[in-house]
Amino acid sequence: MSKTNPGRFFEDYRVCQVIRHAVPRTVAEGERALYHALYPARHALYSSDEFAAASGLDGSPLDDLIAFHIVFGKSVPDISLNAVANLGYAEGRWLKPVWPGDTLRSESEVIGLKENSNGKSGVVWVRTRGLNQMDEVVLDYVRWVMVRKGDDAAPAPEPVVPELAKSVAPSDLVLPEGLDFLQYDFGLAGEPHRWGDYEVGEVIDHVDGVTIEEAEHMLATRLWQNTAKVHFDATFREDGKRLIYGGHVISMARALSFNGLANAQMIVALNGGAHANPCFAGDTIRAWSEVLDKADTHAPGVGAIRLRLVAHKGAAGDHALRGEDGKYAPQVLLDLDYWALMPK
Amino acid sequence: MSKTNPGRFFEDYRVCQVIRHAVPRTVAEGERALYHALYPARHALYSSDEFAAASGLDGSPLDDLIAFHIVFGKSVPDISLNAVANLGYAEGRWLKPVWPGDTLRSESEVIGLKENSNGKSGVVWVRTRGLNQMDEVVLDYVRWVMVRKGDDAAPAPEPVVPELAKSVAPSDLVLPEGLDFLQYDFGLAGEPHRWGDYEVGEVIDHVDGVTIEEAEHMLATRLWQNTAKVHFDATFREDGKRLIYGGHVISMARALSFNGLANAQMIVALNGGAHANPCFAGDTIRAWSEVLDKADTHAPGVGAIRLRLVAHKGAAGDHALRGEDGKYAPQVLLDLDYWALMPK
Amino acid sequence: MSKTNPGRFFEDYRVCQVIRHAVPRTVAEGERALYHALYPARHALYSSDEFAAASGLDGSPLDDLIAFHIVFGKSVPDISLNAVANLGYAEGRWLKPVWPGDTLRSESEVIGLKENSNGKSGVVWVRTRGLNQMDEVVLDYVRWVMVRKGDDAAPAPEPVVPELAKSVAPSDLVLPEGLDFLQYDFGLAGEPHRWGDYEVGEVIDHVDGVTIEEAEHMLATRLWQNTAKVHFDATFREDGKRLIYGGHVISMARALSFNGLANAQMIVALNGGAHANPCFAGDTIRAWSEVLDKADTHAPGVGAIRLRLVAHKGAAGDHALRGEDGKYAPQVLLDLDYWALMPK
Repeated sequence: MSKTNPGRFFEDYRVCQVIRHAVPRTVAEGERALYHALYPARHALYSSDEFAAASGLDGSPLDDLIAFHIVFGKSVPDISLNAVANLGYAEGRWLKPVWPGDTLRSESEVIGLKENSNGKSGVVWVRTRGLNQMDEVVLDYVRWVMVRKGDDAAPAPEPVVPELAKSVAPSDLVLPEGLDFLQYDFGLAGEPHRWGDYEVGEVIDHVDGVTIEEAEHMLATRLWQNTAKVHFDATFREDGKRLIYGGHVISMARALSFNGLANAQMIVALNGGAHANPCFAGDTIRAWSEVLDKADTHAPGVGAIRLRLVAHKGAAGDHALRGEDGKYAPQVLLDLDYWALMPK
Repeated sequence: MSKTNPGRFFEDYRVCQVIRHAVPRTVAEGERALYHALYPARHALYSSDEFAAASGLDGSPLDDLIAFHIVFGKSVPDISLNAVANLGYAEGRWLKPVWPGDTLRSESEVIGLKENSNGKSGVVWVRTRGLNQMDEVVLDYVRWVMVRKGDDAAPAPEPVVPELAKSVAPSDLVLPEGLDFLQYDFGLAGEPHRWGDYEVGEVIDHVDGVTIEEAEHMLATRLWQNTAKVHFDATFREDGKRLIYGGHVISMARALSFNGLANAQMIVALNGGAHANPCFAGDTIRAWSEVLDKADTHAPGVGAIRLRLVAHKGAAGDHALRGEDGKYAPQVLLDLDYWALMPK
Repeated sequence: MSKTNPGRFFEDYRVCQVIRHAVPRTVAEGERALYHALYPARHALYSSDEFAAASGLDGSPLDDLIAFHIVFGKSVPDISLNAVANLGYAEGRWLKPVWPGDTLRSESEVIGLKENSNGKSGVVWVRTRGLNQMDEVVLDYVRWVMVRKGDDAAPAPEPVVPELAKSVAPSDLVLPEGLDFLQYDFGLAGEPHRWGDYEVGEVIDHVDGVTIEEAEHMLATRLWQNTAKVHFDATFREDGKRLIYGGHVISMARALSFNGLANAQMIVALNGGAHANPCFAGDTIRAWSEVLDKADTHAPGVGAIRLRLVAHKGAAGDHALRGEDGKYAPQVLLDLDYWALMPK
């Protein structure tokens, strides 16, 4: 028997199955520094222990998206090694900050299965949880992927399609214990705009662009121990291109969004997201955001803002999202919907 | 009103204005490791806690140029986002070591303004200070930049041109508390040459060369949270090239200078500097140094040496600096003038 | 006299000479994170403090190959700056784990010399030791290199060719104090295969491939403070290519071997190794392993497995090693022979 992991195929999943993912990971100052080298990340709460302490935290946690990437990366060998496409995200919540020295592991529960009409693949819905060394859930989200069948003759399972919330309700947002923006220093944070200054429907162009290199996306993707071949092996795809991990685009766009959203300090929920088109080295990533909703929170001085974050490789200021056919425009890379915390 | 930062234009500056720069940054072991991955840095005092302890310090501080890059990077969004050119440095002094866990912020005072005769830009002189979490100044330097006007019709300010020292006087050098080179281990440091072995006027060719990659200079520049578009966005310049952050060349040249100056352990003053020509990916950087001056210090066994450090992309051993017209030769990238500390 | 280091030539070595290498290095969390960004390293014991603690250790040590690269890198300026080729390794043993915060230095003893018949170069055998800040030897290995003569007229030394063990005897393996695999969690480690599941002669194809970039191998090689020009300066070789540090290939292949050997947690001995052909940016590295031997150990639940690890740039599944002429096939990059520890 071969000792290498061929990955699971569509017929290998069962609803209610819980898969414990391998290779726990201790994260520390090194991951933080690399995150800042890989992305133009400047949100002050993740950059300065002093700023975080003034916001009621015990120092600066690791960036919210580091937690996401580590938890996601661990699920790849079990969930998406034979994936044709990463279709969507829903009901994601950050439940506990991740601190330097924490050890993360993750597990996924299969919550839905539906074979495609072509009989060659199907959609798998999983709820993935990231846990720290005290078995506290730090992050929880649903994603669904299209997975190939290993044996086309395998019978189709009873279809189960989970009902997923369109977005996380404001009352379900979990805020870091102690968070308090009453002493918030807008000067140090980089922009004067507070929660009250943003209007639903407002669109913010984040101005900057970053041209992507092979070495960088591979460094990032390996750092999260994401093993999908297509990101690393230039001989894997017929066109000789390495597909860039979608999370690299998420982090790049989120970091670019500092320019205009410097005070949207912490991501607390992932309402949805689509990797609209593939991204390759040489593309120049730009981003814009739209304010989708706002909500109050119980934490002193803290408001919640729901944002659509769009990354694209088009010209600066190009805010096209979908064509007349309703499909994403070809230059759109990412359409992400999340809740962040801002000072009021 | 747009929420993104367009940067300041020439007419936005006033003499005596103090600008507090955004996004404080906690630096730690991760930044140190990345510095060693990005540059061939081998000065023992910044490489080994044991070596630093034997030199009277509480372990190894972060590299002197890490402090410079972090402090400089914070000033970019306020000072040089609309800069046409970074014209010079003067009166720079390292006043306190930066330790892992320190949080740095920076602020700049406008000390000079002079509109150019074309009426479209002007020169802004600022004194930038880096401060740690105890509000101690760790680094202080003057730089001047040419900045575009946003509105050509804006009236020219009264010209104020600061008088700047040609170099920091030896009596003004500040040495790290406790520094002592009496037990200095030349074997571990890598070279036998002590302060007394260098003569004013002596030229040292540093032999090695490093060919520069896009991914590396972008990792470095982001690590210092320097946001200037021209370093990251290949569509920004008409020629499609990303201009390499001048500080990347400084760090590369300083690291290359180990070969011949392994005992010039710590930079304590920046007397002047010019980024003579732009540097692009694919260039192979080489360096040579000239001993400009020497001075004694009050610290046991410690001498000061004033060095010109020249980085170029020419052939090995090419020490041309200026052409017959007095301008920098086209292959010269950097002409830096600094004081360093050496064992006597 | 030039102050730069020209490196030693063949005639500069004497049998029994001990060379203390320069620039001690404190290693910490930053090096660990960079290792995980540079290589797809997933062995759980080097990824998770919790997993390491459950294996009887005081947290996760730095990767075994980080110790190797640091110790090796320090020896380059003294041993291989003028090397024509790195010919082999033998009798390598990891004697103590390296922990975050440790400071490593290294020294080499010349144990053999033999001039080549062409009179222009010769083979130098050295035993290199890495020591921590408590002067404990953490790693010890023999390597031999072909070194150019600086002066062809220098007389040939009396040839001394050391007798080297074909492999480290199982009874000579040194295990980390306290190591215990009785509570080993195969689920977290990533694969179910235990020591008893591997048979001598078994070949494992590690499936994955990684296409190599210039920026990555230079980041790695600098991180280990390896200064050999040929890795960094694209103008050094006539073909304009930068030769990739052989250790980069070792680490890449070892990390790729996770897929099929996830439980071969720690390298404890290096029996031999050859860098069969040069590796350049753009090559896609793949790996396969062959089980050469197995041995029991005195540690609870711990077995030793002797593995041949072959890295190649050929097509997936290409296990050709040598041609009919007995020479390495042109696509083979590395042929490494080591002992690792596995749960029984």
